[in-house]
Amino acid sequence: MDADAEKRVRLSFARQAFMETLGAELVHVGAGEVDIALPFSERLVQQDGFLHAGVVSGVTDSACGFAALTRMEPDAEVLTVEFKINLLAPAAGERLVARGRVVRSGRTLTVCRGDAFALDEGREKHVATMTATLIAVTRP
Amino acid sequence: MDADAEKRVRLSFARQAFMETLGAELVHVGAGEVDIALPFSERLVQQDGFLHAGVVSGVTDSACGFAALTRMEPDAEVLTVEFKINLLAPAAGERLVARGRVVRSGRTLTVCRGDAFALDEGREKHVATMTATLIAVTRP
Amino acid sequence: MDADAEKRVRLSFARQAFMETLGAELVHVGAGEVDIALPFSERLVQQDGFLHAGVVSGVTDSACGFAALTRMEPDAEVLTVEFKINLLAPAAGERLVARGRVVRSGRTLTVCRGDAFALDEGREKHVATMTATLIAVTRP
Amino acid sequence: MDADAEKRVRLSFARQAFMETLGAELVHVGAGEVDIALPFSERLVQQDGFLHAGVVSGVTDSACGFAALTRMEPDAEVLTVEFKINLLAPAAGERLVARGRVVRSGRTLTVCRGDAFALDEGREKHVATMTATLIAVTRP
Repeated sequence: MDADAEKRVRLSFARQAFMETLGAELVHVGAGEVDIALPFSERLVQQDGFLHAGVVSGVTDSACGFAALTRMEPDAEVLTVEFKINLLAPAAGERLVARGRVVRSGRTLTVCRGDAFALDEGREKHVATMTATLIAVTRP
Repeated sequence: MDADAEKRVRLSFARQAFMETLGAELVHVGAGEVDIALPFSERLVQQDGFLHAGVVSGVTDSACGFAALTRMEPDAEVLTVEFKINLLAPAAGERLVARGRVVRSGRTLTVCRGDAFALDEGREKHVATMTATLIAVTRP
Repeated sequence: MDADAEKRVRLSFARQAFMETLGAELVHVGAGEVDIALPFSERLVQQDGFLHAGVVSGVTDSACGFAALTRMEPDAEVLTVEFKINLLAPAAGERLVARGRVVRSGRTLTVCRGDAFALDEGREKHVATMTATLIAVTRP
Repeated sequence: MDADAEKRVRLSFARQAFMETLGAELVHVGAGEVDIALPFSERLVQQDGFLHAGVVSGVTDSACGFAALTRMEPDAEVLTVEFKINLLAPAAGERLVARGRVVRSGRTLTVCRGDAFALDEGREKHVATMTATLIAVTRP
């Protein structure tokens, strides 16, 4: 991983106000991998009291995007082209962790897998799996 | 549409605390169709100042889910099985509107299309398109 | 549509040997739209006697790809980045028609919607819906 | 794995005429996992001489479907609800192997991951990754 890649990820994460609104935190940055964690909150639920799909998608998409960013050129920014997410089980518990991992990185496009786990009384439950396509954008 | 379907949608929407956290509002409920609107907010952005993909996904997923609910049996609840979203353009402007429409409804599964539009100085821009699979769940 | 776009689509389609193996035929080429038809064949079925998901996906993906190609620069070729398909109903009948339509075209990426219909005793049944992301590639 | 599950997979595979048309072969059946292989053929290519996305999707979808079937009740049949596939690299070489693995199985729905690899001069190249949702159907 480029020596400054972690710094770029941390700066970009800090500018995502939505992550702060959710209460999300960057908990791991490695080469092609980023983890984001989120404490459960009543403000973030759907009608059954589980974390809303938009919350799970949001943190998992960010984990994928920043994982992709670690593989991009230093002057690139990352944008999400598309993603698909399967919600495997209700997102309930104390905490959600989303893990983004690069599956294939190219000059323009990067494909990542993201998996979200709910931590409930010390057990990890697999609650969602995502595949995301990201694009490197160079600002003029 | 079942006479009470709109009521069920409104009750379920009111229980999605995440919609209130986003500032989202139910603006249309019809047979197989639901629209949700969201004023732009600095609290909801990604690193470039556009609405975060999790925000756009969250309201579009809810629009799809409630559109599906209008076609389900009165005692059913709706859960999202999976969705895929393409982000077509930056979600910037004053307001986002997500429109969920039923493509095919079955006894167990319903497939919806969701499209999100940003309203910017009176113009509508198509910012995202989603396909979602929803399941009817009957609580014991 | 660029005057030569239809010609480029027809040449590229003719080079897709898999389309000939399936018995597929190009039935419409317009600006941002391409339709491909396929007579039902016992050679192409899954275990219940319906057209296999790979067949439905294959022709719908080609319809999307060629629809995208009509919007690309004359020297570009098109490759599929990814697609998602929902199979809405069994693909049975005499004939399948897949319609690819451009939803948004950019310099690098194009997003298309594809819908497949089975023609059965004069009635059209919607059997699948796809969203595809295509990329323009310029050969050196 | 249910003692007869492998037998059910082999019988169902044998009824998929499209697999024979492609020249595909069942090469592994385990609990929640199925591999299908395909020799490269000029009849199956797209315009650049690579295996068509419909071919790669078709065998990967079948691998996912049969992997799901190994986890279902003995009287159930499996149908694909939807899948999403990312094409990571050109499918060229001597042989394609698609590996379907169950990610989560429920009473009604099963989610699988499928990965396709091209074998080229002894090296395996990852050419596609799929997430599929399958449904168990009980025939009357």
